[in-house]
This record gives sequence, C-alpha cells and structure tokens, in this order.
Amino acid sequence: MLELEHIGIAVKDLAEANKRYEVLFNAPPYKIEKVENEGVTTSFFKVGRTKIELLEANKPDSPIAKFIEKRGEGIHHLAYAVNDINLEIKRMVDEGFELIGNGPQKGADNKLVCFFHPKTMNGVLTELCQNQ
Amino acid sequence: MLELEHIGIAVKDLAEANKRYEVLFNAPPYKIEKVENEGVTTSFFKVGRTKIELLEANKPDSPIAKFIEKRGEGIHHLAYAVNDINLEIKRMVDEGFELIGNGPQKGADNKLVCFFHPKTMNGVLTELCQNQ
Repeated sequence: MLELEHIGIAVKDLAEANKRYEVLFNAPPYKIEKVENEGVTTSFFKVGRTKIELLEANKPDSPIAKFIEKRGEGIHHLAYAVNDINLEIKRMVDEGFELIGNGPQKGADNKLVCFFHPKTMNGVLTELCQNQ
Repeated sequence: MLELEHIGIAVKDLAEANKRYEVLFNAPPYKIEKVENEGVTTSFFKVGRTKIELLEANKPDSPIAKFIEKRGEGIHHLAYAVNDINLEIKRMVDEGFELIGNGPQKGADNKLVCFFHPKTMNGVLTELCQNQ
C-alpha cells in the first residue's frame, strides 16, 4: 500500500453534507462527479495528503442506498492507493482476504478499483485503487 | 484542519487484527499502547502520511466495547490534526456541531483530543487532536 487515498462516507443528502464538511474543512469540495456504474454522485474534499469522498446514491438499488438503509449514514470504505492493483489482488487473495466481484473495474476519479469484503477486514470495506 | 491524523478501527481481538493488518500493510504496528482513561489498548500502523489505529476494549463498559456490541467491528472514528484544539472547538460549536463532553482530554499517542457527535457529522464520530 502506498498511502490512504481516500475515505468514503455514505450520506443521504449530498448538498447538505457538502455544506457541513465545507465548514469542517474551511473549503468547498474540489470536485463533484457522477459514477454511473456505481450508482452514486460523489464529492471530494482535500485534507492534507488524503481525501474525503462523500457518496450519495443515485438509485434505490445502489450499494450506498442499501448501506444507508441498513446502517445509516457513516463511513462506507477506506481506499488505499497501489501501484499494481492486479498484483495486490493476487497477494491479498492468496493471504485469505475475500475479493468482491472478479477484479478491478472503473471507479470514480479516473481510477481502477476493487473492494475486499468487510468480513475479512475487521468490519472495514477496503478498496484498492490504481491510477489509470 | 491540518490533515487526517488517523482512522480508528474497533476490533474484538487486537492480536488477531494486528496479524491481519500486518499482511495488508506489509509491516507490523509501530506502537502498541494502553490508554487507561479510554479503557482501550491500541496499535498504530503507518500508511503513507496517516495512521491506522486499531482499538480493543480493556473493560466491558468502555466506549469501544459498547460500539462493537451495537454495530460490530469496524471504523470507529476519524481524527484530524489541529494546531489549536480550543480554538477549533469554539469554531465548531459556534457552527452547530455537537461536542461530546466538556473539552480536550488526554488521549493516545501523547495528544490532547476531543470528539464531536456523529449525529452532526453525517454518522461519523469525529476527533480533533493536538500534539502536546
């Protein structure tokens, strides 16, 4: 792992959450992006060397909508930057961590991403991401 | 906020979780510390410029034990480094964020810390910390 790339926080109302986090960080989001294949709209805040990504569901069957329905608003995932996502997937799977899906896919912020299941990560949905 | 200082993850079994996160980060925790007034034992991993703090309860009535009982293992809080914790507390309280307790107290890693309630932070327990 190179560094913590971002923290994803599931919110019900992105416009309202943006206002709140703008107060916390004394700065507005530097980017707002719709990620069609994940069914979310996201906003990004820079904080030091990492980022906070707020996520609002675009449709009722998106993973973020289901997460909020089950657990309420809150931290959804941690994302770590890696140089070679396929190499890291192989290493992690060999060590017994459970990959969700079959491999990397296109995520927000022009990255290739994959997720490991919370049940093998002490309850933390864990994303790896690689710049494309 | 200067930067994301650390992410706190509540775990049931610190020794087991340390092994798991040692695989993820390819490195062991650089510090293990007991924080008496919070009723926890913590381990710290460096990841880029930030840290992952794993937290295991020392006693059944500690906040971490209650968190796990209610929600299971997972991310417990985000901590942001600040220069002047009292100034930031005043700023945040004036903006309507709800402080837990009365002000800064001694936390892990030789810091002064305070917490803001998840209900005013989109479900995220938010810590501010200042080096002593």
